[in-house]
Amino acid sequence: MTTQRPARRNHSYAKAVFLLITAFIVIQAAEEPEVRVKSLFESQKFRTATEFLRSDHARFVQELITLTEIPAPPLKEQARAKAYLEMLSVNGLSDVEMDAEGNVMGLRKGSGGGPMLAVLAHLDTVFPEGTDVNVKRTGTKLAAPGVGDDTRALAVVLHILRAMAAAKFQTVSDILFVGDVGEEGEGDLRGVKYLLTKGKYKDRVKQLIAVDSSEQMRISAAGIGTKRYRVSFLGPGGHSYLAFGLVNPAFAMGNAIAKMARLKVTDQPKTTFNVGVLSGGTSVNSIPAKVSMDVDLRSESKDELNKLVDRFHSILHEAVVEENEARSTKQGAIVVETKLISDRPTGETPHDSALVRSAAAVIQAFGHEPVYGALSTDANIPMNIGIPAIAIARGGKGGRQHSLDEWVDVEENSSVEAAQILMLTILAAAAASGQ
Amino acid sequence: MTTQRPARRNHSYAKAVFLLITAFIVIQAAEEPEVRVKSLFESQKFRTATEFLRSDHARFVQELITLTEIPAPPLKEQARAKAYLEMLSVNGLSDVEMDAEGNVMGLRKGSGGGPMLAVLAHLDTVFPEGTDVNVKRTGTKLAAPGVGDDTRALAVVLHILRAMAAAKFQTVSDILFVGDVGEEGEGDLRGVKYLLTKGKYKDRVKQLIAVDSSEQMRISAAGIGTKRYRVSFLGPGGHSYLAFGLVNPAFAMGNAIAKMARLKVTDQPKTTFNVGVLSGGTSVNSIPAKVSMDVDLRSESKDELNKLVDRFHSILHEAVVEENEARSTKQGAIVVETKLISDRPTGETPHDSALVRSAAAVIQAFGHEPVYGALSTDANIPMNIGIPAIAIARGGKGGRQHSLDEWVDVEENSSVEAAQILMLTILAAAAASGQ
Repeated sequence: MTTQRPARRNHSYAKAVFLLITAFIVIQAAEEPEVRVKSLFESQKFRTATEFLRSDHARFVQELITLTEIPAPPLKEQARAKAYLEMLSVNGLSDVEMDAEGNVMGLRKGSGGGPMLAVLAHLDTVFPEGTDVNVKRTGTKLAAPGVGDDTRALAVVLHILRAMAAAKFQTVSDILFVGDVGEEGEGDLRGVKYLLTKGKYKDRVKQLIAVDSSEQMRISAAGIGTKRYRVSFLGPGGHSYLAFGLVNPAFAMGNAIAKMARLKVTDQPKTTFNVGVLSGGTSVNSIPAKVSMDVDLRSESKDELNKLVDRFHSILHEAVVEENEARSTKQGAIVVETKLISDRPTGETPHDSALVRSAAAVIQAFGHEPVYGALSTDANIPMNIGIPAIAIARGGKGGRQHSLDEWVDVEENSSVEAAQILMLTILAAAAASGQ
Repeated sequence: MTTQRPARRNHSYAKAVFLLITAFIVIQAAEEPEVRVKSLFESQKFRTATEFLRSDHARFVQELITLTEIPAPPLKEQARAKAYLEMLSVNGLSDVEMDAEGNVMGLRKGSGGGPMLAVLAHLDTVFPEGTDVNVKRTGTKLAAPGVGDDTRALAVVLHILRAMAAAKFQTVSDILFVGDVGEEGEGDLRGVKYLLTKGKYKDRVKQLIAVDSSEQMRISAAGIGTKRYRVSFLGPGGHSYLAFGLVNPAFAMGNAIAKMARLKVTDQPKTTFNVGVLSGGTSVNSIPAKVSMDVDLRSESKDELNKLVDRFHSILHEAVVEENEARSTKQGAIVVETKLISDRPTGETPHDSALVRSAAAVIQAFGHEPVYGALSTDANIPMNIGIPAIAIARGGKGGRQHSLDEWVDVEENSSVEAAQILMLTILAAAAASGQ
């Protein structure tokens, strides 16, 4: 009987070794992003989740409308943040909270041991207080300022959270779902900066997906360099008639804008410039004492951006000199003040990183070809400090973002496919199993 | 005894005729403005009033500070209007009231039969809400936005009201003292327009003095023609990076401003242009959908003003065409909208009118020489509809009006002389007697 013991022991031993080897192979295989994606794509859980996405489509659309109609102007995202906090909470996340910067977030716990993944959709829009954010629906098209950028991402995240729960997907990594503040303009990425460098998840987030692109097949694995300036031209001011002939900062600024309008920039690497906001002066019959403009300069190339920034500063200088020569400076000359209001570093996530490979494999699983690109999003910050990060699509067709006639299409088939792609990319990055 | 009667009768008759003739001569003489001014200038009452002005100087300065520190932004003069209403009331006027437009006023009744004189000082300043209007005092200089234009006029009117009462000056004409709204900029002279064309004193005011000039010896008997426009450039808007290459209304407007800055206008007749207020755009990273500017065009000459207006419209057109050629219009082209926000007619009061002659005689009585000029003030409206009107000095040295470093000097001797000149001009126009 005792002889049986060794035999049984041997059998047990062999079985244990077999199981270990099997487990090792499974883990190894699972670590290959393409294998994991294939396995997830073919799993029953994925079919279950997909069925759920179809059944949940109307709710997704309703939540998108609800969120769009809660204004979230730059630096004033609080009302929308509170609503989204509540939505994260009822969709099964734990540790739901608002941090000191105003980001709202919740955790979907993994089985443990994997690198934490943060999934970000930003709460803020570019539209100021008072903008009409009522959604106009025409067929499957929804039109409203901010309905795409990035409100659709906020809504689709809730949608896939429910699908992942319905299919009982289990991941190895914890996933932190975040509705973050300050992605746009003057926000200067304050939300993601706080999250990664000051908040309680600082040093714990090891990979990041920004759901913030309008192009379905694009994986933005590089951050566009962006520099934004508030430029103020100052002068002595005075009465428009009695003091006529004094230097006028509006003339200096107009001249600078006219010069900027004639700038030549490269198409490849893509380089752009914008005058986005103008302000200044107190009354029609006063020479302004101060006028200002907000300027946005970007390039995929650090060198091209630097060249553009240099030319921009030269233009400001020329405009000041020319106005001071054109009119009297006896009450004071025009001066220019330039404040850097946003500086988004360039950065890159290698194309052979697991995160980029997962995202590419998901797009390929759906029969499409990924396109690699660069954007200026929350992902710039992790890229710049060495955390693998990408920006991917919030899904669906749409257009005219940052304009008052922004729109998205919520046609069901394309919307569900977009949600599937986003869900699978998140699951693969968090090392989910289809089993 | 009865014979005595005719004798007595004859004596009485002769005396009556003599008195009538004397009275006739006095009235005739009084109707010559120069004679009336001389008589007033040399009167005991005027000496009494002057002594009073000296003793009241500190109160005048205090009231000037008090009024300056009550903000009166364009279209928001109410707080200051209420305070001034109370001040008019305690300075002996009757029928003190606020009209439907927001003007405040009170009547100093005359003995009857003379043409009603309106004396206007405007309540509004050019400075927007939130401007720091605290008065900084250095020696006899007071500095604050609006301290001169036209707050000093409001305060000096109260000062001379007290002096006229102290000296018991009686006028023939009723004098309507008004703190009026909407003189500056967008106000578009709404206060004086209401007063003369709609309010209860419509058709009763027969001559008008606007206390609204910084030049002591200048009699403005002509109104400068002014046209003011709010110009908006509209375009499709879009994302600063993703939609780069679309037409940008800020570039069109910058180009228009740069072209305006190169305009040539005549010194004689004086012709001026100003870009006073700029606004537009929603965020640094959005191509604006709309930007606007407020433009002020003026000339002493109707012809020069028309030429300037024509050139201005051409510039706007050129700027639109050039931007639409420079960038893509596939999402929509730039268009310009131009709204006339103020149109101040030219007008004139003849130099040989009693009002102008009185004002000139007063300045000469003080040993100075009057200078004739043109301004853009409340007086433009009566001039244009045939009511004799002038704009004269609020008194005292000062400068930098319509700028944040506006200042006035309240040195006593020059301030008292300025108050004397203003008081005598008003008294002469209202046919006061020094007796």
